[in-house]
Amino acid sequence: MSIARKIKAAGAQSSMIRKMFEEGAILKKKFGADKVYDFSLGNPNVEPPEKFRQELQKLAQEIIANKHGYMPNAGYMETRQFIADKINKMQGLKLAGDHVIMSCGAGGALNVIFKALLDPQDEVIVPVPFFMEYNAYVDNYGGVLRKAKTRDDFSLDVAAIAAAVNDKTKAVLINSPNNPTGKVYSTRNITDLARMLDKKSNELQKTIYLVSDEPYSEIVYDNVKVPNIFTVYKNSIIAYSYSKTLSLPGERIGYIAVNPEIEEASELLNALILCTRISGFVNAPALMQRIIARLQDVKVDVDVYKRKRDLLCSGLGKAGYKFEKPQGAFYLFVQSPIADDVAFVQSLLKKNILVVPGSAFGSPGYFRIAYCVDDAAIVNSIAGFAEAIKECQ
Amino acid sequence: MSIARKIKAAGAQSSMIRKMFEEGAILKKKFGADKVYDFSLGNPNVEPPEKFRQELQKLAQEIIANKHGYMPNAGYMETRQFIADKINKMQGLKLAGDHVIMSCGAGGALNVIFKALLDPQDEVIVPVPFFMEYNAYVDNYGGVLRKAKTRDDFSLDVAAIAAAVNDKTKAVLINSPNNPTGKVYSTRNITDLARMLDKKSNELQKTIYLVSDEPYSEIVYDNVKVPNIFTVYKNSIIAYSYSKTLSLPGERIGYIAVNPEIEEASELLNALILCTRISGFVNAPALMQRIIARLQDVKVDVDVYKRKRDLLCSGLGKAGYKFEKPQGAFYLFVQSPIADDVAFVQSLLKKNILVVPGSAFGSPGYFRIAYCVDDAAIVNSIAGFAEAIKECQ
Repeated sequence: MSIARKIKAAGAQSSMIRKMFEEGAILKKKFGADKVYDFSLGNPNVEPPEKFRQELQKLAQEIIANKHGYMPNAGYMETRQFIADKINKMQGLKLAGDHVIMSCGAGGALNVIFKALLDPQDEVIVPVPFFMEYNAYVDNYGGVLRKAKTRDDFSLDVAAIAAAVNDKTKAVLINSPNNPTGKVYSTRNITDLARMLDKKSNELQKTIYLVSDEPYSEIVYDNVKVPNIFTVYKNSIIAYSYSKTLSLPGERIGYIAVNPEIEEASELLNALILCTRISGFVNAPALMQRIIARLQDVKVDVDVYKRKRDLLCSGLGKAGYKFEKPQGAFYLFVQSPIADDVAFVQSLLKKNILVVPGSAFGSPGYFRIAYCVDDAAIVNSIAGFAEAIKECQ
Repeated sequence: MSIARKIKAAGAQSSMIRKMFEEGAILKKKFGADKVYDFSLGNPNVEPPEKFRQELQKLAQEIIANKHGYMPNAGYMETRQFIADKINKMQGLKLAGDHVIMSCGAGGALNVIFKALLDPQDEVIVPVPFFMEYNAYVDNYGGVLRKAKTRDDFSLDVAAIAAAVNDKTKAVLINSPNNPTGKVYSTRNITDLARMLDKKSNELQKTIYLVSDEPYSEIVYDNVKVPNIFTVYKNSIIAYSYSKTLSLPGERIGYIAVNPEIEEASELLNALILCTRISGFVNAPALMQRIIARLQDVKVDVDVYKRKRDLLCSGLGKAGYKFEKPQGAFYLFVQSPIADDVAFVQSLLKKNILVVPGSAFGSPGYFRIAYCVDDAAIVNSIAGFAEAIKECQ
């Protein structure tokens, strides 16, 4: 066989999770899809906002020269300026359109960022638990993902991150609201991180970037505020996606925003544009870029997710599960009643409940529930959850 | 500064071409866009077919569950099956939907293919001249692009490719109809290549893949046929894009098709799907995948490009330029009247004509004209072309 050795190995590694998904598909066939409670994937079940549908219909009818043609690799300036204005309005910042580069979702954005930043062996520090794809996104460019523990409430443990910094550190990667915990880092927590990074940058005489993966930044509950990293740390870059804000994960539309105060901004921006081109992304999808620029203050109904969160937390709390109530995103990270989270996930599977073991996020002893599903699936699954925990006692 | 060393170097290298584009922008400002003849980019000026616009309008109105949601990383099975059926119908082959993986254009497809195939230092042989992005697409995965000359008529020089094969060779990459020459490789030429690769694979006891980049396969003139590589070589993979067939380059939609007879097909297909996911492409844009499956036998009006080709060839022929008449795509690769193609391109710039030097395609002594522009630009540029060649004599 002749495929790349690294990819062969990665294929073998990921087969455990794939096997679980396959078991899920078998269960659905056997018992019917409505009798299987699939909390495994973060595929939003909330439809895109009505305004999106209207604008798509309008745009489909309009005659525009070069409507689906190439544009500059960074995207349409109109869309980039629209996004810069929006960030400026929310945060009192001074981004120009040039500071925004359109991307194929946050996954595309992070790959472009790490390709632009990482030399082989450069390290990226990530708080644990974390979205498992980060491993690949950093490894793709020869980088090394270094893990730092979080506090018991999943807030940043700045001392743990500081201990992980060394002369190979190129970036710290955070994700708030967090997948898989739903944690939103407070302004205080982020500011502490920024101060530590400033100090370390000075000591080591090198730039340490703060990369913030923010696909869930507009999915927050209970009036929690997501602090903007640009206001607390100069060398910061945001990866954003409309996948969750507008329920468009299949369309691959997002952006990279660079702090206007960042060191040598113009060289970095050119590098990001170059990497967008040479990675084969070329540019973010044209039609979606055009629509984004027409959607002022539009997002999915977050109250729907809040209701689902409350249903789930109430049901699991009564059943005796322990967890931190999520402040954002649509994930609940639950303590496994037994130490072996993979075994507990298997026992939930016997109740036709599909969740992902914490091991897949670097945190054994937990499991993740993606609650972006029908209310009925949540309500009807509670009995199975309750049985599973009882069987452990 | 802290961007990756390799990207810093690549940025410096590509600045010559970027500078030319910038000079073009300055010219357009100074003289008016209609007085500048920009043949530098392959951005089709032909609008997408009317049927595409109709289907987009219909689709925009339809209510479909999870319309813009995640789907399997390989794409919607309906679309993959549609494409497999189309290839089978045209070529008498037996692809299943599983043999097709939807991609973000051919650029995305090639990156996924090379990520799946290449170990560091693996070599990919490409006939010269070639699309300049191949350098990056191979280098992205630690591979080495090895160049092989073509014959005077730009057909494959199979002996030259054979001489380039060694125990590091992982693939041969061809592109027919070709960018920048417009050459279509004949069945005989492709068959000779396939026989040589079979022989070399046996001798070296290793798989050598034939990767065919085919965004222009439906843009051909004068009843020329583009032979399908699947019918002549087992270990073959096609990278396809709808960018040119439907004039949608900004939408980033294409596919990878794998020969059903390929060695260890299932492991390779899994590797390609894994690489689609972990590279950050995740999946090809959902809406475009849905539309593709509704467009049976739809493509742009190729006669329009034929007319442009004939206008250009006639005008430049009379002016004394030497070239092979293109059989497909929308590029003309012209011999520079002086050895220094970069200098000649500069002299064309003084006539407000923008073209790309052959050096950028690995072939100094030529220049490339992308004739996917208004007829008027072609007609009105001929005088400038004629003056420039006269000034060399």
